[in-house]
Amino acid sequence: MTTVEHLLGKSRHIWQQYYVHPFVLGIQEGTLEQEKFRQYMIQDYLYLVDYTKTFAIGVAKANSIPTMQLFAGSIHTLTHTEMDIHRGYMGTLAITQEEIDTTKPALPNLSYTSYMLRQAYEGSVVEVLASILSCAYSYEVIAKTMVQNRPECVDDALYGSWIRGYASDDYAEKNQVLIEMLNDWTKEYTEAQQQRLEDIFLACSEYELAFWDMAWMMK
Amino acid sequence: MTTVEHLLGKSRHIWQQYYVHPFVLGIQEGTLEQEKFRQYMIQDYLYLVDYTKTFAIGVAKANSIPTMQLFAGSIHTLTHTEMDIHRGYMGTLAITQEEIDTTKPALPNLSYTSYMLRQAYEGSVVEVLASILSCAYSYEVIAKTMVQNRPECVDDALYGSWIRGYASDDYAEKNQVLIEMLNDWTKEYTEAQQQRLEDIFLACSEYELAFWDMAWMMK
Amino acid sequence: MTTVEHLLGKSRHIWQQYYVHPFVLGIQEGTLEQEKFRQYMIQDYLYLVDYTKTFAIGVAKANSIPTMQLFAGSIHTLTHTEMDIHRGYMGTLAITQEEIDTTKPALPNLSYTSYMLRQAYEGSVVEVLASILSCAYSYEVIAKTMVQNRPECVDDALYGSWIRGYASDDYAEKNQVLIEMLNDWTKEYTEAQQQRLEDIFLACSEYELAFWDMAWMMK
Amino acid sequence: MTTVEHLLGKSRHIWQQYYVHPFVLGIQEGTLEQEKFRQYMIQDYLYLVDYTKTFAIGVAKANSIPTMQLFAGSIHTLTHTEMDIHRGYMGTLAITQEEIDTTKPALPNLSYTSYMLRQAYEGSVVEVLASILSCAYSYEVIAKTMVQNRPECVDDALYGSWIRGYASDDYAEKNQVLIEMLNDWTKEYTEAQQQRLEDIFLACSEYELAFWDMAWMMK
Repeated sequence: MTTVEHLLGKSRHIWQQYYVHPFVLGIQEGTLEQEKFRQYMIQDYLYLVDYTKTFAIGVAKANSIPTMQLFAGSIHTLTHTEMDIHRGYMGTLAITQEEIDTTKPALPNLSYTSYMLRQAYEGSVVEVLASILSCAYSYEVIAKTMVQNRPECVDDALYGSWIRGYASDDYAEKNQVLIEMLNDWTKEYTEAQQQRLEDIFLACSEYELAFWDMAWMMK
Repeated sequence: MTTVEHLLGKSRHIWQQYYVHPFVLGIQEGTLEQEKFRQYMIQDYLYLVDYTKTFAIGVAKANSIPTMQLFAGSIHTLTHTEMDIHRGYMGTLAITQEEIDTTKPALPNLSYTSYMLRQAYEGSVVEVLASILSCAYSYEVIAKTMVQNRPECVDDALYGSWIRGYASDDYAEKNQVLIEMLNDWTKEYTEAQQQRLEDIFLACSEYELAFWDMAWMMK
Repeated sequence: MTTVEHLLGKSRHIWQQYYVHPFVLGIQEGTLEQEKFRQYMIQDYLYLVDYTKTFAIGVAKANSIPTMQLFAGSIHTLTHTEMDIHRGYMGTLAITQEEIDTTKPALPNLSYTSYMLRQAYEGSVVEVLASILSCAYSYEVIAKTMVQNRPECVDDALYGSWIRGYASDDYAEKNQVLIEMLNDWTKEYTEAQQQRLEDIFLACSEYELAFWDMAWMMK
Repeated sequence: MTTVEHLLGKSRHIWQQYYVHPFVLGIQEGTLEQEKFRQYMIQDYLYLVDYTKTFAIGVAKANSIPTMQLFAGSIHTLTHTEMDIHRGYMGTLAITQEEIDTTKPALPNLSYTSYMLRQAYEGSVVEVLASILSCAYSYEVIAKTMVQNRPECVDDALYGSWIRGYASDDYAEKNQVLIEMLNDWTKEYTEAQQQRLEDIFLACSEYELAFWDMAWMMK
């Protein structure tokens, strides 16, 4: 079993809650109150800033030039493509840059990004990658599950663009690179090292769930 | 108004919840279920490890020898005196080192310490100190409030030692040094810099409250 | 006087040694022994890896999205354009990737990058920028001085491409952004803060000189 | 062969230069010009500050409570005992605190401490320890070699106290704990991991030599 298969197995009980989460189902069914999505978008944009910083520490901790280039590529994608998607929604949802700048990250948001950044500062490039993967990959699986459950969801006027982005081949390919890299780096890991990765992956999976809860409870 | 007076004013609505928190009142009245306190002690010991690490980064970020020595002194106190208090309770509550080693920090615990450590790695020695102060000082105020509300609480067979420790002159003196240092460092702070400290102090105050909630809800 | 004008004034006695350094004059006159340039290129490539890591910590320490994007843009340029120039020379000079991978950074190289990375980890985004600027800007001034001293140097079969790159408008524009940013951030700096920047800028300027010395003395 | 035996074997060609270094021989023979020793003391005090910071990051990166306590203990010793020895010499040599505060670390000093701190921030607790050991252990071996070469050196009015401190059983015991810890942690290290430690230990050994050179050449 690869490392990532192992991590996914251990966190299945958490991930299964994503697919039936009221916020996620609301996007899938197109029934999510727009104001909730709007608040989520602002928080997610603030999240993305710190998520990008985690990749940046990955560049600093990389122990080979290809690894450095890979994380640098992710930063480029994040600060351009992915933030562009957000900027697209900002237009639609009338979110101004000023609103972004003056909104504070809610505590569950801050907790998640602080945990990732702390792992990044404390650990090696492996811990950076393990911290990133829950977010990166769960969005792919969630979006693909939505498409499987209700194929027409991709055409939703508001939520279709979000779903298509995270269910896209392009997004999946980028994740595949991360997954293969983590599997490759950890092939000869001892049990104690595996346990450490499991702790990180589980904590991040729980933080993902708490982020959906926060999104759902925001008014 | 000093910086710390300002920070305390801004977080009063959070701190006021500490004094009437069921867990805190349970210690004050001596009615707290021992098992709850036992779980709290284990989590608090794990917290203390990361709290000490935050001071350690304070040593690394210090820009003068006295500051370095002050944080180093706190590390010494934490790894000896304060952990000794915990070790005292470990005896009373039959908590083994093995139980400590195999217990994972609960998510609210991990969130709090990750936030402090992240501020420490990202920021300067001022951010380190602002992160530490909510915990350090609120325990003093909480313990003194308990004594004021119910003076005989200091004699409780189980909880008296905890209350006496945090209500002691010795503990207050150490806090006073931290408070004066933060006031001194930030006298000429701009509004933007003050705002940054306020964000940190408020977040930590909220994390303190979430820690009491966690302690109360543990079985 | 702007901060950068002040820093340049304070380090003039060091910078003046760059323009008449035998290695630099060798490039200008086209007389530099190719083997020396080859060894320099390998060391400079290794330097660039850690220089890029310093920008990466700049992303992590950025306190605004535009700052983050600016450092992220530099990482993109460094891992693409600038490393490409190096890769161009690698072809010409028959430097294999394997040779890069098995060469250790010489001690003056390691000292310089360790100093920059340490400032980056210890300090704020301002210290990151102050650490980067000596290298970034001195290469522009050196290349332009070469062109002024001996205009035909840009046509040198081997060294012309190096000179044209660092004397280009494109390179100068990128530096201008860094310079304006540092000036802007430090407008209200106290004397103690200015002194700190001066220490960093002077140390990096000395490390630049030591790097040229190392390049010259390599066989 | 233990890890430390291996590291010492690989760096023997550097360490052998310590014992015959003019500065070291000058201490041994009691012939070292006092002014040189005075300048060295000031630089070494500045070094000690950053050396202590490296241990502090060791506390922050520790992955067990005993490791944390060990590094914390070293910080306590450094900020008390060892700095006290320095403070003793400060009295004898009429070095004021103000002179310390206004002296800048010379470049070889800055290079060495920046290298250690960078390893500490980038790496794990193992890299922290590998960075520290060259300095910690070479002082013991140097002082013991002095005593072996010229037993009466311990009675020198000026240098005797320095020699006795580093040749003491107490100092050796502390080193023994560090050595055993590094051996223990790296027992199952792969060749690539061993190579990494070797790079660090060799670089630090070279920085030690450069520090003696700096001390010798100061006026």
